[in-house]
Amino acid sequence: MSDLAERMRARMERLYPICRSITGDGVRATLAVLGETVPLQVRAVASGTPAYDWTVPEEWNVRAAWIRDVGRDGGNGAGRTVVDLADHTLHLVSYSVPFRGRLSRAELEPHLHTLPEHPDWIPYRTSYYTRDWGFCLSQRQYDALGDGPFEVCVDTTLAPGELTYGELVLPGETAEEILVTSHVCHPSLANDNLAGLTVAVELAARLAEQPRRHTFRFVFAPGTIGAITWLAQNPDVWPRVRHGLVLTGLGGPGPLVYKRTRHGDRPVDRAAAHVVRAHGGELRDYSPYGYDERQFNALGFDIAAGRLSRTPHGEYPEYHTSADNLALVTDDHLVEALEALQEIVDVLEHDATYTNLRPYGEPQLGSYGLYPTTGGRSASEAVMAMLWTLAYADGATSLLAIADRAGLPFAAVRRAADDLLGAGLLGG
Amino acid sequence: MSDLAERMRARMERLYPICRSITGDGVRATLAVLGETVPLQVRAVASGTPAYDWTVPEEWNVRAAWIRDVGRDGGNGAGRTVVDLADHTLHLVSYSVPFRGRLSRAELEPHLHTLPEHPDWIPYRTSYYTRDWGFCLSQRQYDALGDGPFEVCVDTTLAPGELTYGELVLPGETAEEILVTSHVCHPSLANDNLAGLTVAVELAARLAEQPRRHTFRFVFAPGTIGAITWLAQNPDVWPRVRHGLVLTGLGGPGPLVYKRTRHGDRPVDRAAAHVVRAHGGELRDYSPYGYDERQFNALGFDIAAGRLSRTPHGEYPEYHTSADNLALVTDDHLVEALEALQEIVDVLEHDATYTNLRPYGEPQLGSYGLYPTTGGRSASEAVMAMLWTLAYADGATSLLAIADRAGLPFAAVRRAADDLLGAGLLGG
Amino acid sequence: MSDLAERMRARMERLYPICRSITGDGVRATLAVLGETVPLQVRAVASGTPAYDWTVPEEWNVRAAWIRDVGRDGGNGAGRTVVDLADHTLHLVSYSVPFRGRLSRAELEPHLHTLPEHPDWIPYRTSYYTRDWGFCLSQRQYDALGDGPFEVCVDTTLAPGELTYGELVLPGETAEEILVTSHVCHPSLANDNLAGLTVAVELAARLAEQPRRHTFRFVFAPGTIGAITWLAQNPDVWPRVRHGLVLTGLGGPGPLVYKRTRHGDRPVDRAAAHVVRAHGGELRDYSPYGYDERQFNALGFDIAAGRLSRTPHGEYPEYHTSADNLALVTDDHLVEALEALQEIVDVLEHDATYTNLRPYGEPQLGSYGLYPTTGGRSASEAVMAMLWTLAYADGATSLLAIADRAGLPFAAVRRAADDLLGAGLLGG
Repeated sequence: MSDLAERMRARMERLYPICRSITGDGVRATLAVLGETVPLQVRAVASGTPAYDWTVPEEWNVRAAWIRDVGRDGGNGAGRTVVDLADHTLHLVSYSVPFRGRLSRAELEPHLHTLPEHPDWIPYRTSYYTRDWGFCLSQRQYDALGDGPFEVCVDTTLAPGELTYGELVLPGETAEEILVTSHVCHPSLANDNLAGLTVAVELAARLAEQPRRHTFRFVFAPGTIGAITWLAQNPDVWPRVRHGLVLTGLGGPGPLVYKRTRHGDRPVDRAAAHVVRAHGGELRDYSPYGYDERQFNALGFDIAAGRLSRTPHGEYPEYHTSADNLALVTDDHLVEALEALQEIVDVLEHDATYTNLRPYGEPQLGSYGLYPTTGGRSASEAVMAMLWTLAYADGATSLLAIADRAGLPFAAVRRAADDLLGAGLLGG
Repeated sequence: MSDLAERMRARMERLYPICRSITGDGVRATLAVLGETVPLQVRAVASGTPAYDWTVPEEWNVRAAWIRDVGRDGGNGAGRTVVDLADHTLHLVSYSVPFRGRLSRAELEPHLHTLPEHPDWIPYRTSYYTRDWGFCLSQRQYDALGDGPFEVCVDTTLAPGELTYGELVLPGETAEEILVTSHVCHPSLANDNLAGLTVAVELAARLAEQPRRHTFRFVFAPGTIGAITWLAQNPDVWPRVRHGLVLTGLGGPGPLVYKRTRHGDRPVDRAAAHVVRAHGGELRDYSPYGYDERQFNALGFDIAAGRLSRTPHGEYPEYHTSADNLALVTDDHLVEALEALQEIVDVLEHDATYTNLRPYGEPQLGSYGLYPTTGGRSASEAVMAMLWTLAYADGATSLLAIADRAGLPFAAVRRAADDLLGAGLLGG
Repeated sequence: MSDLAERMRARMERLYPICRSITGDGVRATLAVLGETVPLQVRAVASGTPAYDWTVPEEWNVRAAWIRDVGRDGGNGAGRTVVDLADHTLHLVSYSVPFRGRLSRAELEPHLHTLPEHPDWIPYRTSYYTRDWGFCLSQRQYDALGDGPFEVCVDTTLAPGELTYGELVLPGETAEEILVTSHVCHPSLANDNLAGLTVAVELAARLAEQPRRHTFRFVFAPGTIGAITWLAQNPDVWPRVRHGLVLTGLGGPGPLVYKRTRHGDRPVDRAAAHVVRAHGGELRDYSPYGYDERQFNALGFDIAAGRLSRTPHGEYPEYHTSADNLALVTDDHLVEALEALQEIVDVLEHDATYTNLRPYGEPQLGSYGLYPTTGGRSASEAVMAMLWTLAYADGATSLLAIADRAGLPFAAVRRAADDLLGAGLLGG
């Protein structure tokens, strides 16, 4: 296992047990782990703050949550604990309101969620905007429940507090921004979204060490309300975002999947299409369902944010269940996702148009030291990349467009352009 | 069998035996049957009236037509009748000029038409613009003909009279028209075109009972000359036609087939494509051969008329033969065609553009009573239709365009738009 | 074998043994043979003349070249000749510098080129821009070489002289030109490019006998440097070229292959696509590698030159080997290529836009003597071509666009347009 893979996995292992939701201590603990790698700014927005059509909710925290079967304990309340948040963060419906009481089996039923088709898996459920409480458990746990009565403890607090998100700005030559986001609100689900977070942090660390044309901004916020809150808090920032990338599910099954922006033809779409195709991945059109791309792409913001994942939400059986655990995420998939992201960013950073300064026929490349000397054989990729660049460098066709037309990697065309610039055959 | 199917079939059964051509009593009798369901105006245009490059022809009527084999009757003229119009309206070439005489087999030959590849079927032939007479018969009848001589009777009249067509106007909120036509000139051919006529009349009856944005005009005229005559008679009407639909062959074999307008990208093309795809049907580009769409789409009129049929003319073996009988037409196909037509008309009537009034991120649908309350599960079609509408309602993208992009039925997107309008999230 | 095929083959048989390169007597001899059929002007450009980024090279000629094994002859120099240019023009690397000397096997090795995967074939190699000498031989010859030493003779001259090319101008009604080129620099390789030359000369001979709208210019020059030299010598001509065709490999294996211009959508691309599709051929996008299309399409010239070949360079095993001999080229392929070229030229010469003068419905073609008289049957191709032309002749849509839309040959639509013009139904 490479250092990189080991680092990404270790980070996920520390994040996995934390009980996260859209607000609360779990988010703060998560941001603290991410902040060990890059100097993340932690921002807090008070409950009740308006955010466009939404309002920052009360902060949710949990001390304990369990169901005890007191039907066979002689009524002393010391019965067997049958469901316990301490065993798995998915056991409690996220944002459950506090509750303490003794319930019959019939009274308990409406508060229980299972997955009959996967009897060993615990589902993931939330109730952010309806005041309710509930437990998620495996079908096997459910089937083993007795007749009760049950002692139920939901020791949560839901009170004015704050919504927390992390932000990292890497200034570039220009104020035009590339926004990279990944949601921090999901509890013990590895692919969705510890994979996204661990890759995003590595990308940020790499970019911090490189010269940058664009300003890069990483935002680690809870889904939906976090993105909308960030947008509402940054009315002077979001109009400067030129390209956006929402990262999620980068370590699970399947090839890379890029979901286009709402318009479908923005520079980030072309950059991602070029890279994802080369990785054998899949391109999909925009739909208004999914992760925070749906907020960024909303008509009022119109931010060109694409989404990079592997098999998307809802299309793999482990999605939003306890089977989305650390074993579902592979190191190779994480590493490949990081490489692809770096390649997409390279295109966005370095795509440019040039002008052929020797446009009357093909230059005698050999006289510039740029051509193999014995004729009659096939040209190498390097020579082909030069010929393609010379053929289309009309001051309007970009290197990416040339690479796509040529069927060559962007990096090869960029190197060719550098060589031709060096030889005086190309002008900026 | 539903009331609807029963009604459509009964109408066809009454129309089937009538000897129709492009003019004459058969057309009048046909219009009378159609007029029992909707208040059809019968229009008459005198023979000799000019109609652009054409002239309304003489009116053709027929009392009787037969061939008698007098070769074996001892010359008393009472021989066996071997072909008789009374048996089938296809036996006489349409627009045959009057003739009475005794002919040898050799003299008769050039006037006989058969289908050797389908020995039991009678072909359908016309001679509108060449003064001639002829008989159509099955190959078996032909093979059984003796050596003659034959007594031939073509008791027709071809004389100044009139061309007749039926017209129904259903006024709408605007003077912009949707034109629906179906040809009335074919004799005992069930799919071509009793099926088109019986469906068209049902559509007219439905629309008569509904509020209408467009003015609807139904024209039941003979093919080619009837359409051109209608155009020539209505120079103030046809420029108001925004969408046209030519109906034919709606009950025979095969899925629905929509033939695009000459331009191929008119609103009626998009509406029909949306509906016909959902019905598993087929879309074809325009060609200048077929039914009256070729007149409406002519460069001078430039009326955006598409054509709805099933397997088109010439592509099913029964076409233009006696095998295009009432058994070739199925009730299910007639009913489905009517539903598809209603859906196409619904798109033309109700497509519109709206503007998202809460464009900064996704509105909190739950707070408007528009969203299921427990998160973590897939959105329903109704919610998805709202999300798609909000995502693309930019004041320029129409509901149909949104439905096509979303892969949702137009009706679902229209309902979503209504809900969002009701909640104040969308503006007109 | 037709006269045409016999003529084309006889011409190739005379050209095959000539030792051609990019300059020298071989080119002159080749142009002399081509000039027997059409009055070719032979142009000479002195060595050292600049041509954009290039310079006309020294002229190369060869008297003899051989390798003699003197290892077993007792040192009298009369040993066995193991490789001899007199046997095959491919034996000598083209543009080999003069050399005479005795070499050990080890010293000889770097100067030998073989094709191990095809042990009986001699490869084709050049060294135009690096001063070197070398021999090409079959792997079997190579394997049979002894230990040497070897007497080597490369009796060539490389000295100031001239670059020669042939040019034929066929004036037309307008000064706008169609440029047809085919390279003359390859030695005994039949498909590449005696096939291109023999077809090009036949096309020129045909065009010389026809009325011409465009001025036609045929250029027979060495590849790359020849094309660039012609361009440099004709700065007032090349801006007048509207359409270009580079011909090569027209008699070898595979269907016709048309390579589009750099822009991909020029008139010559549409004309060639129409014709080549009808011949079951293949269309390919531009790439900046290949024959002289890469010079003509260079940004500075921007000449819309497509390339017609069969299976292109490098894609058939015989390419650039002695197996590209006269047996690889078939008469049927040569004749078909000439027909296709004539059809492409016909489109370029005769494509035009017309206006329907009877646009209100379909004209009554029968009244103009243009329609079969008995109705109810399918329209013939001639009638369909008229109907398509009338349907789309809006003064902007060209006959080629109509033919493509109709799926009819250009020639059929052109005939229909002529008939309709004659009947007064169409205007220019």
